[in-house]
Amino acid sequence: MINFNLQLPVHLFFGKDAHKNIASQIPTGSKVLVTYGGGSIKNNGVYENVMSALEGFEVVEFGGIEANPEYTTLLRALQIIKEENITFMLAVGGGSVIDGTKFLSSAALYDGDDPWDILAKGIRTEVGLPFGTVLTLPATGSEMNSGAVISRKELGQKRPMGGPGLFPKFSICDPTVVASLPQRQLSNGIVDAFTHVMEQYMTYPTSATLQDRISEGILATLIEIAPKVMSEPCDYDTAANFMWCCNMALNGIIQKGVPTDWSIHALGHELTALYGIDHARTLAIVLPSMYRYKSDKKQAKLAQFAQRVLGLEGSEQELATKAIDQIEAFFNSLEVPTKLSAYDNVDSAEVAPKRAVENLAKIRTIKLGEHGDILEEDALAILNAAY
Amino acid sequence: MINFNLQLPVHLFFGKDAHKNIASQIPTGSKVLVTYGGGSIKNNGVYENVMSALEGFEVVEFGGIEANPEYTTLLRALQIIKEENITFMLAVGGGSVIDGTKFLSSAALYDGDDPWDILAKGIRTEVGLPFGTVLTLPATGSEMNSGAVISRKELGQKRPMGGPGLFPKFSICDPTVVASLPQRQLSNGIVDAFTHVMEQYMTYPTSATLQDRISEGILATLIEIAPKVMSEPCDYDTAANFMWCCNMALNGIIQKGVPTDWSIHALGHELTALYGIDHARTLAIVLPSMYRYKSDKKQAKLAQFAQRVLGLEGSEQELATKAIDQIEAFFNSLEVPTKLSAYDNVDSAEVAPKRAVENLAKIRTIKLGEHGDILEEDALAILNAAY
Repeated sequence: MINFNLQLPVHLFFGKDAHKNIASQIPTGSKVLVTYGGGSIKNNGVYENVMSALEGFEVVEFGGIEANPEYTTLLRALQIIKEENITFMLAVGGGSVIDGTKFLSSAALYDGDDPWDILAKGIRTEVGLPFGTVLTLPATGSEMNSGAVISRKELGQKRPMGGPGLFPKFSICDPTVVASLPQRQLSNGIVDAFTHVMEQYMTYPTSATLQDRISEGILATLIEIAPKVMSEPCDYDTAANFMWCCNMALNGIIQKGVPTDWSIHALGHELTALYGIDHARTLAIVLPSMYRYKSDKKQAKLAQFAQRVLGLEGSEQELATKAIDQIEAFFNSLEVPTKLSAYDNVDSAEVAPKRAVENLAKIRTIKLGEHGDILEEDALAILNAAY
Repeated sequence: MINFNLQLPVHLFFGKDAHKNIASQIPTGSKVLVTYGGGSIKNNGVYENVMSALEGFEVVEFGGIEANPEYTTLLRALQIIKEENITFMLAVGGGSVIDGTKFLSSAALYDGDDPWDILAKGIRTEVGLPFGTVLTLPATGSEMNSGAVISRKELGQKRPMGGPGLFPKFSICDPTVVASLPQRQLSNGIVDAFTHVMEQYMTYPTSATLQDRISEGILATLIEIAPKVMSEPCDYDTAANFMWCCNMALNGIIQKGVPTDWSIHALGHELTALYGIDHARTLAIVLPSMYRYKSDKKQAKLAQFAQRVLGLEGSEQELATKAIDQIEAFFNSLEVPTKLSAYDNVDSAEVAPKRAVENLAKIRTIKLGEHGDILEEDALAILNAAY
């Protein structure tokens, strides 16, 4: 088992009416910037709950943070934070709003010339402007961790950032919000959480017995509840398990002590940056192709997954093949395509994979995966097969 | 799923040489009280590691905290804390040393007349004297949570305490310490962790699908690794899984959103208080008898455990019976007896169960278990069957 350290400082309030804890978690006298996205919170009751919880605080609003939070949008919010002397933020939304708010948390206290450097130079955030979150869309786990991903369209880039200063002070997770989500966001959330677990689990057999079992537990639960999440998102217990799976998938626990992959995310980010495809949907495009390409080195773990999670039998090779086929079928059952060509506005098969790999090569050396053995030509082959 | 809140603020350093992180985690200029037990740390290298990590700090030592940490012993340490103006504590030991140090953390800042009131009146500790831990014996999970249990022999009592002020600031978990543990402590640790999970899992089927899967993952791992923990405690990866299981069993995660039992602990504590039987061994005495007595209400969950963790098949009733038999056989395979009469210095079958129940009734109303339906006469019947 690999050495690790772990701290989960976010104070999580999980359940019905969890928003009633907001006021007690924000320092008295704070001037609060409430950040949100396209305005769905004004139709599902969340906005009213949050605003009534913030009574007594001075509140400024910043709406319009888009999916794949955009750097230029966030710069406008940053100006408001400085002009209004904001002392606390409350991110009300899904992973994009929370990630965008993490960037603001970092940039508000950044003393360099250009806040883009936080992303471009990979500067870790040790201390950020404090913020809480009210989760409206289970998927990314961003409500419980200290990482974020920010896009900058003019450069066609999507870059990660993080650091111990970016943990939310608290997060409000009320599963009743799931009832109001469109089908596309539900399926995206399931695929996102599923792939998060896979990136930390689907490598090679290690001695981390307990971590494997916990990851398999999350995967089994997601497979079990997915049909009901889609058909009855208003069922509270189904929604609660869905929300808790998304959180556990990326709160840090299952990555401790094990090798991790994250190659699917690396390639997926480029597809979002180039073609605006939903984050989760890019993962569904890359994952099957990635696992088929790496099926030799991942075979033992794929077989373990097939046996323990899917309950299949067969030779190791048969099990590995079946595992990939069933994952692809699982994504398709959620009406999430697993080929790039399923999307409009995508370049041709000759162009799209090449552009994505070239873009990635601009921002990092391509040596992906748990063995660092996925190089440029491998990435291209994987995306070609995923077209 | 039941509403919950969760925070794991302990900074955990897990792995080989984790003690090298100690110095960075203690505020500069602290005057540190190092607490420990019977002195085994002076034979296994832990004492030297800790003392060299504390170079530059003013250090005072307090050794001799016994298993089932004794109130009168701790009062002597409390006097030293006050006389020496201690500002930080480092608990180096197993659950007893850590629990004792938690009492000191609370008592050092308690402004009432009698520190026994913290236990007798169940006063929650909101702020305690800060402390870290260096775990030398995986079992109780105390290194990651904010609870403690303290004994007072003159009253024949063993009482719990807790509160958010009692989380360690950091915990050092180096699995190499497992190699030096005697067989009895290894088996006790396995039984303790196993029963911790059971108290949070073995109730009735609920909608908390993910929590069940995680608990089952810990139980399956403990059953899988137990033989090697006993035969090869010097195998690093086995030791690491063992240590991580004990932590995950009681760090709070698996209890979130589910009903819990804890009746086995309630009765077990009385057997320790009366007869000095090791904590884990009292759990092994009570568990099989408890589950047989409550097999009607626990039948569905026992069957789920038998299917998912033990891989058994049969009717629900058959599975439940087999589950209890196999748990008992598992404890016995570790040479941990499952009957009270296996111990010397225990009163007769007519006296011992009665004394234990009477003692428990002195400190709380006996309405135990997830349904609160284990009353005095039930507790007596359970202990009679466990004799």
